Amino acid sequence: MAITKILIANRGEIAVRIVRACAELGIRSVAVYTEPDRYALHVKRADEAYSLGDDPLAGYLNPHHIVNVAVQTGCDALHPGYGFLSENAELADICAQRGITFIGPRAEVIRRMGDKTRARQAMIEAGVPVTPGSENNLAGLDEARREADRVGYPVMLKATSGGGGRGIRRCDNEEELARNHERVVSEATKAFGSADVFLEKCIVDPRHIEVQVLADHHGNTIHLFERDCSIQRRNQKLIEIAPSPQLTPEQRTYVGDLAVRAAEAVGYTNAGTVEFLFSGNQVYFMEMNTRVQVEHTITEQITGVDIVREQIRVAAGEPLAHQQSDIRHQGFALQFRINAEDPKNNFLPSFGRISRYYAPGGPGVRVDTAIYTGYTIPPYFDSMCLKLIAWNLSWEGALDRAKRAIHDMRLQGVKTTAPYYLKILDDPGFRSGQFDTGYVDAHPELLNYSEKSNPEEIALAIAAAIAAHTGL
Amino acid sequence: MAITKILIANRGEIAVRIVRACAELGIRSVAVYTEPDRYALHVKRADEAYSLGDDPLAGYLNPHHIVNVAVQTGCDALHPGYGFLSENAELADICAQRGITFIGPRAEVIRRMGDKTRARQAMIEAGVPVTPGSENNLAGLDEARREADRVGYPVMLKATSGGGGRGIRRCDNEEELARNHERVVSEATKAFGSADVFLEKCIVDPRHIEVQVLADHHGNTIHLFERDCSIQRRNQKLIEIAPSPQLTPEQRTYVGDLAVRAAEAVGYTNAGTVEFLFSGNQVYFMEMNTRVQVEHTITEQITGVDIVREQIRVAAGEPLAHQQSDIRHQGFALQFRINAEDPKNNFLPSFGRISRYYAPGGPGVRVDTAIYTGYTIPPYFDSMCLKLIAWNLSWEGALDRAKRAIHDMRLQGVKTTAPYYLKILDDPGFRSGQFDTGYVDAHPELLNYSEKSNPEEIALAIAAAIAAHTGL
Repeated sequence: MAITKILIANRGEIAVRIVRACAELGIRSVAVYTEPDRYALHVKRADEAYSLGDDPLAGYLNPHHIVNVAVQTGCDALHPGYGFLSENAELADICAQRGITFIGPRAEVIRRMGDKTRARQAMIEAGVPVTPGSENNLAGLDEARREADRVGYPVMLKATSGGGGRGIRRCDNEEELARNHERVVSEATKAFGSADVFLEKCIVDPRHIEVQVLADHHGNTIHLFERDCSIQRRNQKLIEIAPSPQLTPEQRTYVGDLAVRAAEAVGYTNAGTVEFLFSGNQVYFMEMNTRVQVEHTITEQITGVDIVREQIRVAAGEPLAHQQSDIRHQGFALQFRINAEDPKNNFLPSFGRISRYYAPGGPGVRVDTAIYTGYTIPPYFDSMCLKLIAWNLSWEGALDRAKRAIHDMRLQGVKTTAPYYLKILDDPGFRSGQFDTGYVDAHPELLNYSEKSNPEEIALAIAAAIAAHTGL
Repeated sequence: MAITKILIANRGEIAVRIVRACAELGIRSVAVYTEPDRYALHVKRADEAYSLGDDPLAGYLNPHHIVNVAVQTGCDALHPGYGFLSENAELADICAQRGITFIGPRAEVIRRMGDKTRARQAMIEAGVPVTPGSENNLAGLDEARREADRVGYPVMLKATSGGGGRGIRRCDNEEELARNHERVVSEATKAFGSADVFLEKCIVDPRHIEVQVLADHHGNTIHLFERDCSIQRRNQKLIEIAPSPQLTPEQRTYVGDLAVRAAEAVGYTNAGTVEFLFSGNQVYFMEMNTRVQVEHTITEQITGVDIVREQIRVAAGEPLAHQQSDIRHQGFALQFRINAEDPKNNFLPSFGRISRYYAPGGPGVRVDTAIYTGYTIPPYFDSMCLKLIAWNLSWEGALDRAKRAIHDMRLQGVKTTAPYYLKILDDPGFRSGQFDTGYVDAHPELLNYSEKSNPEEIALAIAAAIAAHTGL
């Protein structure tokens, strides 16, 4: 392999994940960190670690600084992880200029898929269905009105360079359109430095289905089936599932092929995810994420393919280790993002010290985390503590295993989303496998869980403890 | 399911494993413990826990006492785990008498397979090849001499009711046969209450290949492919592998079919393991273990079948969840028994307090354990701390993942076999996938590992730490 030492331009569990992939490939790993992460697990686990300075965020967001560290420490490649600079084309450019292999697609592809109207155009040309909407950026409010009338309300007004849920507004009628047009143009100019906006038909409560793709530099593009990420709150995914329990085999094949077509159309290389919205029998391209996803784990569980390893191999110029016909999926995997948040208090972050952590284990359970007993979750980054992945041959078996694994885990010192997930796992609507992105809002009653076990369980436990200490 | 509450007649990681299977099936679990296990994980994790008294071992070995607890606590079934009373036919009888479902085969089958000459006869009748040897118990030394001459030296003289490596002696010539005959008869009488002995040809340095079988009460018997347990020391397995990297697909099918034939011949039900010796192209039945094995985990990893769940379902009278044609194997899994032993000091047990434990994680890693930070390993039981299972699609990938996972783990306070396994994982002989039961004795040089990382790594780590703290 042409890659011998990788700088990991990230933190938290994904940095640990990349350290592990490096270790398995015999590649030396280099961590970077800002001051609040001095005692972070990725720093402890990497072969080397270098400070990016005191500011909690600035270091992680400065592509010049990070590539400098890579060059000075003798790295020949850089893995951006997800978030931070992972979809920043400038980082890919700087890497290229400094002779560092960027583990991701070419900068031009990152730019093209990051520009929402250009991405839409590429998909239309490739024959991938997109949401009905304006073909180009809108010239002004008049054109916005005409386009909205054409596709029908409700519509989404979107900043062309937007992302992360910002610069997007739903308009249910002409009045809202007029009001929001001004706002989105203003937001887009301030936040993204571009006044460009476009408009799409709003798909109400769709299912969020995304397809993992892998492509090498030898013309091979494959997909690893889909993930169902419909269980989300305010566009933040909470539970991801692979494969989707609500697709027919025909739909699975169709959307997999679409994703490969989308990737091939833009000359995609490395790992990427093509996101689709499903509404009834209609499928619409939403966007392509040009990096590894948080939820890549569940695809690994059902296919056995090591996605991060493949990212590194592809970047090193090697052909994909697998052909499409080799890829099988078996069973169901669910990933639970155990966040340090208080669901009962509007999911307010609950940063602080982990007073006790004990990993769940046994069959069909995987954990990706950077926490440990005594670790203090810094308030500067996202609130995800742990990704708990449960796999089983059957859908019901996977649900039962997930419940068991969440009960198995000990995570104390901060409030987490774990008890909320236990409620979801008992909900017949969720267990049916039929849900859309409206699920969380439609089920506020699932927040009515007890912080402790229910009284009957407590009473039984006390009785058992007394009996245990008296003997039988 | 007819079973609602299970007494787990065991301790340690297998008791935790059974608690987990119960939880996933919605079955209430009852732990039992002797005084040194008051703070054991199986006690904490089960729904209820009851003391078996102060003596460390007596309680776990008393079938009447344990079944009493099961009856008094309203259990309808009992899982014996492995070791302890798991192959004690009397326990199965008492369960039957007291109306408790024994999660294992019928008592008569346990007795038959526990009697080595009866088991041999059953196999011969079923057309399963056995090691050449005496067809019945030996009438005396004269018959032993004749039989040894017939099959050829070396021979193994074995107590018919023996087990666990006791009551067995190798004889390389007639002189040794005469000397050992007296000894084995005497040992057998004292240890097993029967003077019966028989004789088999000694297969020198065979490969140990065992097949997992499952059988229900509806006439269905299937196998879940084989495990290679050739890496052992003094008949104690250290590393187990599934499937065997040294079987051809034809050998795999052949031995799988043989195991099903063996199980069907004795009317086997529940989970069991048929152990074979491979010598060149010859396959010989060795014995059948009528319980779940320590190494069932790797079969679960490559097939996805939950063996403990199937044990419980079968005991409840349900048909197997899988047909033979459903069972596929994918990739390779290795299990490492991380024992609290000092390999450099003749594998002397290293009992004591675990000052720090942090589980390995990430893709393809499973842990089954009952230890935790602060747990003191009692000196009364076996020395196994943890089963670390590594899976990957390819053999080389599985080896690399195993190394990574062992490095990933933190287990401090006791000496363990982990660094020895790292040496084995770097040995070209092991990596070739070609080894027999003589491997450990043939490679004493693998014990020459450094307790710490090698000096180069230490120097690099110091340099990195200095660089990290000065910034770059």
